Amino acid sequence: MTIGVDLGGTNIVVGCADSGGHILHKEKARTQPERGPKAVVETIADLCRRVMDATGLSEIRGIGVGTPGSIDRENGLVVHAYNLGFDHVPLRAMLSSALGGVPVVLENDANAAALGEARHGGAKGYRSSVCVTLGTGIGGGVLLDGKLLTGCNGAAGEIGHQVIAIDGHPCTCGLRGCWEAYASATALIRQTREAMEREPDSAMRAIAQASGEVTGRTAFDAARAGDAAGLAVTERYMDYLALGLTNLVNILQPDAICIGGGVAGEGKSFLEALQARVRRDMFKSNQGETILVLAQLGNDAGLIGAGELIVAV
Amino acid sequence: MTIGVDLGGTNIVVGCADSGGHILHKEKARTQPERGPKAVVETIADLCRRVMDATGLSEIRGIGVGTPGSIDRENGLVVHAYNLGFDHVPLRAMLSSALGGVPVVLENDANAAALGEARHGGAKGYRSSVCVTLGTGIGGGVLLDGKLLTGCNGAAGEIGHQVIAIDGHPCTCGLRGCWEAYASATALIRQTREAMEREPDSAMRAIAQASGEVTGRTAFDAARAGDAAGLAVTERYMDYLALGLTNLVNILQPDAICIGGGVAGEGKSFLEALQARVRRDMFKSNQGETILVLAQLGNDAGLIGAGELIVAV
Repeated sequence: MTIGVDLGGTNIVVGCADSGGHILHKEKARTQPERGPKAVVETIADLCRRVMDATGLSEIRGIGVGTPGSIDRENGLVVHAYNLGFDHVPLRAMLSSALGGVPVVLENDANAAALGEARHGGAKGYRSSVCVTLGTGIGGGVLLDGKLLTGCNGAAGEIGHQVIAIDGHPCTCGLRGCWEAYASATALIRQTREAMEREPDSAMRAIAQASGEVTGRTAFDAARAGDAAGLAVTERYMDYLALGLTNLVNILQPDAICIGGGVAGEGKSFLEALQARVRRDMFKSNQGETILVLAQLGNDAGLIGAGELIVAV
Repeated sequence: MTIGVDLGGTNIVVGCADSGGHILHKEKARTQPERGPKAVVETIADLCRRVMDATGLSEIRGIGVGTPGSIDRENGLVVHAYNLGFDHVPLRAMLSSALGGVPVVLENDANAAALGEARHGGAKGYRSSVCVTLGTGIGGGVLLDGKLLTGCNGAAGEIGHQVIAIDGHPCTCGLRGCWEAYASATALIRQTREAMEREPDSAMRAIAQASGEVTGRTAFDAARAGDAAGLAVTERYMDYLALGLTNLVNILQPDAICIGGGVAGEGKSFLEALQARVRRDMFKSNQGETILVLAQLGNDAGLIGAGELIVAV
């Protein structure tokens, strides 16, 4: 069994999973990062103890932590995590000390999620995979031969910040034209809003009103209802999404790309539409191809992947 | 010592290198691919025998071959190589048989060049590197932990066909906006020609006339002579080049990116200008960075890398 920590800007979730990646028990608390690193670590340690108590684990071999931001694996630091307000926080030593010296392993949260999906989720059984999570931004993690690619500075896998459009849309990172600015859920919502303004008669308006807001589903729901403007939004969005996927395929040719996040809830037809685009546009090769798969672990991917970083007895 | 074959559409070069990657002897012949695979293989075998004779190698353990096109490593086929006219040619078996059963290993030529630069050239000493060759197109090879990344279908490393401009310039691959269409030597020459038309008073015109043609050096030479239009071309070209490099950094964070091809002859100031752009634009991380280096083996990279695929006694 493994114990994993999913440390986020809003919530901390700690869970225990069996060797099949099934969560046996999890505990959750608000992060309230404004309390500072020390208090946050105490909350994590407390949740760990509660998970151990609930599952009857008397001794653990270690704890894996998925955290936002950049990690210094060698020194066990969270170097920068803006939504935690962490700056060079020695999280490994702090958490280890709070739990009587237990070993702690840190990993970036997107990488932890990629590891979770690779070991127990949508990318299970594929030797090499890229995990793409379509959310506020685009999270990414690359596994090659079963190993997380961390790169020379621990920051590999920032696939959302590949530029796909010179001088394109501004991205939150400060550059222009990043894939994230075209293919994240945030980007889809922006594209949907823009289309609603251009096409006031579109069914998207009624759909958004009914659900109370414009979401990543609005245009897809409209397209399914036969709305031409909605269909145009989804088709263009899938073009953007497929373009970045094709770039990853041409560079890495992984066995699988695992797609998660709310938009992935569009399911099989969505996946097939993307696969067709990638197949059409990838650099020619007729010896197999990267398979697109849907993520399966949802919000638990990071937790399960964090647990995989180390094994708990 | 190793024996490597650099099989190109125009020439075949076979060479023998020592363990330091120094070429002791090489033999060259025209490929004349219109003669068909059988005659081409006979020429390769003949060159191999001549190299062995010249260097006194009586027995070899194997031969590495770098070939254009896509490779089926498992079955030893050149699946497609347009400039050889090869279609599912069992090159491994044919060459092995022509040389009395000696083992043969095939690799894509760009990958072989990347291996050469990684073992004995500009990327020597770096665990993970990407080799970028700026020529007619952009050739690429990715080495992670010293191993060539071939991907699920042997076609990984097609870095020139990452799209950096949605709906951008047409690329020879049939898509639009590939990095190759902006940052290859061919693209630079196109950009130089376009600028010469827009700016008839530019020094680029005289420089091109003096050398008899527009080359990848024309704009750089003009910029050095203080020509504003030439400077604008080189600055914009380096922006394009750096953009694709930054994408590779964000995705892979290799220890080094090794840049070769004629344009790399611009040397240290060129490299520094690229490094500054990548440093400015890469996704933030303050724990080291990918180092840009210049390729050192020139046209011998593929030959030396092919030899590294197998060791000759």
